[in-house]
Amino acid sequence: MSTAGQVIRCKAAVAWEAGKPLSVEEIEVAPPQKNEVRVKIHFTSLCHTDVYFWEAKGQNPLFPRILGHEAGGVVESVGEGVTDVEPGDHVLPIFTGECKECPHCLSEASNMCDLLRINTERGGMLHDGQTRFSKDGKPIYHFLGTSTFSEYTVVHVGQVAKINPEAPLDKVCVLSCGMTYSSSLLAGFGATVNVAKPKKGGSVAVFGLGAVGLAAAEGARVCEASRIIGIDLNPNRFEEAKKFGCTEFVNPKDHNKPVQEVISEMTGGGVDCSIECTGSTQAMVSAFECVHDGWGVAVLVGVPSRDDSFKTHPIHFLNERTLRGTFFGNYKPLSDIPGVVEKYMKRELELDKFITHSVPFLDINKAFEYMLRGEGLRCMIRMDA
Amino acid sequence: MSTAGQVIRCKAAVAWEAGKPLSVEEIEVAPPQKNEVRVKIHFTSLCHTDVYFWEAKGQNPLFPRILGHEAGGVVESVGEGVTDVEPGDHVLPIFTGECKECPHCLSEASNMCDLLRINTERGGMLHDGQTRFSKDGKPIYHFLGTSTFSEYTVVHVGQVAKINPEAPLDKVCVLSCGMTYSSSLLAGFGATVNVAKPKKGGSVAVFGLGAVGLAAAEGARVCEASRIIGIDLNPNRFEEAKKFGCTEFVNPKDHNKPVQEVISEMTGGGVDCSIECTGSTQAMVSAFECVHDGWGVAVLVGVPSRDDSFKTHPIHFLNERTLRGTFFGNYKPLSDIPGVVEKYMKRELELDKFITHSVPFLDINKAFEYMLRGEGLRCMIRMDA
Repeated sequence: MSTAGQVIRCKAAVAWEAGKPLSVEEIEVAPPQKNEVRVKIHFTSLCHTDVYFWEAKGQNPLFPRILGHEAGGVVESVGEGVTDVEPGDHVLPIFTGECKECPHCLSEASNMCDLLRINTERGGMLHDGQTRFSKDGKPIYHFLGTSTFSEYTVVHVGQVAKINPEAPLDKVCVLSCGMTYSSSLLAGFGATVNVAKPKKGGSVAVFGLGAVGLAAAEGARVCEASRIIGIDLNPNRFEEAKKFGCTEFVNPKDHNKPVQEVISEMTGGGVDCSIECTGSTQAMVSAFECVHDGWGVAVLVGVPSRDDSFKTHPIHFLNERTLRGTFFGNYKPLSDIPGVVEKYMKRELELDKFITHSVPFLDINKAFEYMLRGEGLRCMIRMDA
Repeated sequence: MSTAGQVIRCKAAVAWEAGKPLSVEEIEVAPPQKNEVRVKIHFTSLCHTDVYFWEAKGQNPLFPRILGHEAGGVVESVGEGVTDVEPGDHVLPIFTGECKECPHCLSEASNMCDLLRINTERGGMLHDGQTRFSKDGKPIYHFLGTSTFSEYTVVHVGQVAKINPEAPLDKVCVLSCGMTYSSSLLAGFGATVNVAKPKKGGSVAVFGLGAVGLAAAEGARVCEASRIIGIDLNPNRFEEAKKFGCTEFVNPKDHNKPVQEVISEMTGGGVDCSIECTGSTQAMVSAFECVHDGWGVAVLVGVPSRDDSFKTHPIHFLNERTLRGTFFGNYKPLSDIPGVVEKYMKRELELDKFITHSVPFLDINKAFEYMLRGEGLRCMIRMDA
């Protein structure tokens, strides 16, 4: 029996208060309105961004809220005006969207849609400002327009990427996260393959070997870079990073000169490109200054604190270095992600190694514990388990 | 009778001391040695860089010296091993060279040759460290490997661009300067057409409307940008700048908010690209922050003081802006300049409007006076007059 047009009662993990364990309980999910789709989530995973907004230390707290933005699911029903997807389609909800009409969507270079660009403050749907989630009539806020810690969620149609139905949702769901705040696979991967674009045989420095940095290294591996230098203050990460293509490691603590000088000496003048995945402005400066003059490109992925500033001598630019930043790896979410899924299907891109843990939905708080302890990379949350 | 292999006695304008008028007198020019060519200079023009090293306020003084680096001439004779040019070839001596063998020359992206990259400190020839100029046996130093304020000069073969012999040397000679220190036509032009690459119909902001900035605007005009916004503290430059394609003007003094905000408001979020041609770090920051998020590109051309630093919030990068610098407009001097000369021959690029004054060689000090008074753009010095 079709549930289209009906309120669905289902389980969701509700964050009632900042920093308190999520509570998995039954809620109501209203039908999708104009330009919205309702999606049955099959798998979701936890990202630092969820934790950041759950802790609510750096922003206005908005509770109760259903977090979650990295997921894979199947369209259950669609609202008025939706023609791009239909019930049964396999989709990845994405925290940033593509309206396909604004100057950014019409530009080849940008993925920063004016209408559906990431908005962390908004708790309701764009159409009417209301929530589609409620519990006993009390509204529960959305998060990033995705709120995937629920068996069913409602998402703007411009925030769902329709993918190959053959693709295993428990793997490709990690592609739906590209959040730049801290942890992001596509942001790191895209920073390398879409923005830095190392040539075959080139050299790449990756600053920060968390999930983002490892994804950046994976990008360099896919581009067939010959030297992939991982930089991290934590040497425990070096062994793991080898699986992602890193060939050499530098711990800035081991040297009594700036790490950019160390890298410059290792490489005869600098690397061809560097990817900064820590958000530390000091690392950003090092990442920029360690690229070779004449052709070096540095790409910033990690997001800094509000008051930080990037500072360098302009001569580094005049010697023909380039500094760029990227948001979501420069991927247009709806247009480009299906192609990345295909890359995974053709085994050109490895995702399985990013998924180090798995828990049933009822144990979602364990995923938070793993992340808070810095254990593993991604924890997969199985909705039907 | 051939002069090849002979010492040539000819007139040169010698800078005997810092800041003192040049003295036009007879000197000796030795034959070219290995990988060198001797060139008869027909036209030369004066650039800020000559004045800067003549004043010798910011560097180690090196005198007596023959200045000059913007010129057009004809090869008189060649030294051992020279096969790329022969006597009679029309050439532009260039202050920075191309060895065609180093990593920079082998890279498509770079023009910063390891062997022949600009060197302002060197007073002798690369081959043996000696000068080819002398007066009564006393050596006279070279400048930038070009020293074009002489009827004859000796230049490394990697520093002469062979051009179409039909091209009028009194016009195309201004293309041989791309010096980034302050005044440069190709640096500005190339910054726009080779680095910023505005699309047809795009918007471009040019910071600083001296010769470099006007060349950058000319580049935007050639790229068919629809809005070319000139920014300068001196409103007297606005009228002249219209000839170079500027469509709008902003004087930062007329506004009580940062000029980047003014430009952002004028353009609905920022220009597609900006070119910084002043060397002021404040202008660099404005030039970077006034480009549109998602696709904006800012290009630095003007060279800052030694201790200046560029400072911005990294979020401007993460919002997909790009900051690049350029040296000599990213032109490879020997490989690319002949093509720029052809552009002039096909009337795709206008040069005549840059040449506002002309003096005979004996009056070379007048050219210095024009420049010191900020009068005009380029003063052509006619060697045979």
